[in-house]
Amino acid sequence: MKYQNDILIRAARGEETERTPVWLMRQAGRVLPEYRAVREKLSGFIELCTTPELAAEVTIQPVDILGVDAAIIFSDILVIPEAMGLPYEMQEARGPYFPNVIQNKSDVDRLLAEEAADHLQYVYDAIDITFKELKGRVPLIGFAGAPFTILAYMIEGHGSKTFSKARRFLYNEPVVAHALLEKITRATTTYIKRQIDAGAALVQIFDSWAGILPPDQYKEFSLPYIKQICEDVPHVPRTVFSKGAFFIRDEFAQFPCETVGLDWNMDIQESRKMVGPNKVLQGNMDPCALYLPEDKIYQKTKEMLDAFGPNKHIANLGHGLYPDTEKSKVKFFVDAVKELSKR
Amino acid sequence: MKYQNDILIRAARGEETERTPVWLMRQAGRVLPEYRAVREKLSGFIELCTTPELAAEVTIQPVDILGVDAAIIFSDILVIPEAMGLPYEMQEARGPYFPNVIQNKSDVDRLLAEEAADHLQYVYDAIDITFKELKGRVPLIGFAGAPFTILAYMIEGHGSKTFSKARRFLYNEPVVAHALLEKITRATTTYIKRQIDAGAALVQIFDSWAGILPPDQYKEFSLPYIKQICEDVPHVPRTVFSKGAFFIRDEFAQFPCETVGLDWNMDIQESRKMVGPNKVLQGNMDPCALYLPEDKIYQKTKEMLDAFGPNKHIANLGHGLYPDTEKSKVKFFVDAVKELSKR
Repeated sequence: MKYQNDILIRAARGEETERTPVWLMRQAGRVLPEYRAVREKLSGFIELCTTPELAAEVTIQPVDILGVDAAIIFSDILVIPEAMGLPYEMQEARGPYFPNVIQNKSDVDRLLAEEAADHLQYVYDAIDITFKELKGRVPLIGFAGAPFTILAYMIEGHGSKTFSKARRFLYNEPVVAHALLEKITRATTTYIKRQIDAGAALVQIFDSWAGILPPDQYKEFSLPYIKQICEDVPHVPRTVFSKGAFFIRDEFAQFPCETVGLDWNMDIQESRKMVGPNKVLQGNMDPCALYLPEDKIYQKTKEMLDAFGPNKHIANLGHGLYPDTEKSKVKFFVDAVKELSKR
Repeated sequence: MKYQNDILIRAARGEETERTPVWLMRQAGRVLPEYRAVREKLSGFIELCTTPELAAEVTIQPVDILGVDAAIIFSDILVIPEAMGLPYEMQEARGPYFPNVIQNKSDVDRLLAEEAADHLQYVYDAIDITFKELKGRVPLIGFAGAPFTILAYMIEGHGSKTFSKARRFLYNEPVVAHALLEKITRATTTYIKRQIDAGAALVQIFDSWAGILPPDQYKEFSLPYIKQICEDVPHVPRTVFSKGAFFIRDEFAQFPCETVGLDWNMDIQESRKMVGPNKVLQGNMDPCALYLPEDKIYQKTKEMLDAFGPNKHIANLGHGLYPDTEKSKVKFFVDAVKELSKR
C-alpha cells in the first residue's frame, strides 16, 4: 500500500524523515465539535463504536480538521472483554462498568479466546470503510488494550484509583490470572491481525493502568503478554504505551516493537538513555499544556522537539487529549510540530 | 521528652538501631473494627476529625492493637483549606468535595494564611490528649499535605484522575498559583509548628498528587514549598512522601528532611542510589501484598527488608492501608518486620 503521506510509517521504521510526524491520542473525540454532532444523535458511546459508518466518520474527522499524519480507528479497549463474553456499559459519570466480573477459574473457562475476534466484525467494518474513504491519504492505526489493563477491568468491574481488587487477584490467584491473561492475549492477537487485514497499517498497545503495578508484578503479569502480541504481528510497526510504568523503560531496549510511548512524567533524555538508541519514541507533551496561550504552546512544542531530537520521534501527547481543550489549540500544536521540525 | 520506645526517632536521625522501626500509613482507620465502632456512632469522617477525644482514641488504637512504633494523629490533609476559608464535605461515594473553589486572585486574597492555624485548635487538642494518654510509650507523628496537593483540591474541588482543572491553572495562572501556594505554605508551617508544640515528635508531608505533574512543574510548583516548610521546622525529624514523583528522587539527596517516603512502584536499590546514602528511606510494601497468605507476607517482608538493608530504613507500606485488609494480616506484617529485622 502506498500512502500520499506515509511519514508516520517511515518514522516508525526508524528512517530519517523531512520533519517529525504527529498525531494525538483521542484525536477522534469530544475535542471536535464535529464529533459531538455525530455523538449527539446516538444513545451513547458504545453505539458509536458499534456503528461502522459513524465510527469511520469520526475516525477521519481529525485528518481533515487537524491535519494529523494518521487516523486511529475510533473504538474502545473494552470491546475485547465484551467479545470474550463479559459485556460492559458506559456510564456518563462513572465511566465503564461491568455488571459481571471474573472471580475464579470457571469464570475464565467460560470466556472466548481467539473466537472473541469473530464478534468484532463491526470494528473491521469500520476500519474497512475508513481505509476506503481515506483513499491512501494517511495510514490508519489499529489498537488494543494490553492484557493486564483488560484484566484489571474484568476483575475490578470499573475504573479505580487503586485497582486493589484486581491487584489482590494477581497476588492470591496468580495461576488463574495467568490463565486469564493468556486468553486475553489470544483474543487480542487475533483481533489485531484482523484489524491489519482490514486495513490498519500500524498498531498500538495501550497499557493504561501499567503504573499501578510494582515492577516485579509488571514483569510477571504484563510485559510477557504484550511481548507475545508484538511477536505475533511482526509485519506492521508496533507501538507500546505503558502509561506510568517509568520503571520498565530499560526493558524496551530489546522489545519486539518499533516505538515506545512516553507519558508526560517521563523525562525525555532519561527515557532515551533507558530505552536505548534503536527505538522510536512517541510523545509526550502534557495534555494540559494545550490550555496555554498559543505563543506558549509554540515554545513548549519547541522544547519537546529539541529534547527528542530530529529523528526517531513521533510527536504526540503524553496521554489522551482532554475533552475541554480548544480545537484551535490542538490544530495549533499539530501545525507547530510540522513547522518547527522541518529539516 | 523520653519515650519508652523511641526507635523511630533514633532511626529517623540516622542512628543504627536494634531492629527496623515500623508504622503504617492509615493505621488508624477502617482496617480496625475498633475504629469502625467509634466511627459508627458519628455522622461522618469530619466529625471524627473535629472531636479531639475520639480522634485521640482512634490515634492510639493501632499502638495497642498492632504494636506499631509510632502513633500518627488521626486527621485529614484537607483541614488546612477548610481553616483557610474553603470548607469541604466528605461524600461517602465521591470522597472530598469543595462547594466553592479557587478561581482567581481575589479568591486567594480572601483566604487566611498563618491565622488559619488558629482555627485548628481541635487538632492540637487531639494531639495534646493523645500525647498525655500515650504516656511516652511511643512518639506521635504530626502531618500535613504538601502545598501543591492542597492547591490541587482547592482548584479542582474534588478528587480526579487527571486534576486537569488544577493543572490548567498552573499553566495559565502561574502568578496566582504561586500566591496561593505561598499562602498555603504559611498556613501549613504555622499549623505544623503548633502540632509540634502540642506534642508531635516527628512530622510527615504528604504530597499525594505529586505524580500528576511533569518534572519541570513539580520543581517549580511543589518542591520549593515543601522545602520552605521543612526549613522552618528544623527541630524534629521530617519525612517527605511525594507519591508517584519517581522523577524527583535525586532532588532529595540535599533536601532539608531526614526521611524520604517511597511508594511501591519505586525500586528500592535504584531509589537508594538516587536519594544518596544520607537519607533514611521509608516504605514501601505494596498495600495489596497484605491480601496474601501469611507465609507469603513473611517472604515479601523479608525481601523488602533485605533490599533496604538494616539501617536508614523505616518500614511502612508504599501507600495507605486499604480498608478491606484483614487486621490479623496487618499485625502479622508488623510482627514480621520486628522479628526479621532484629540484629
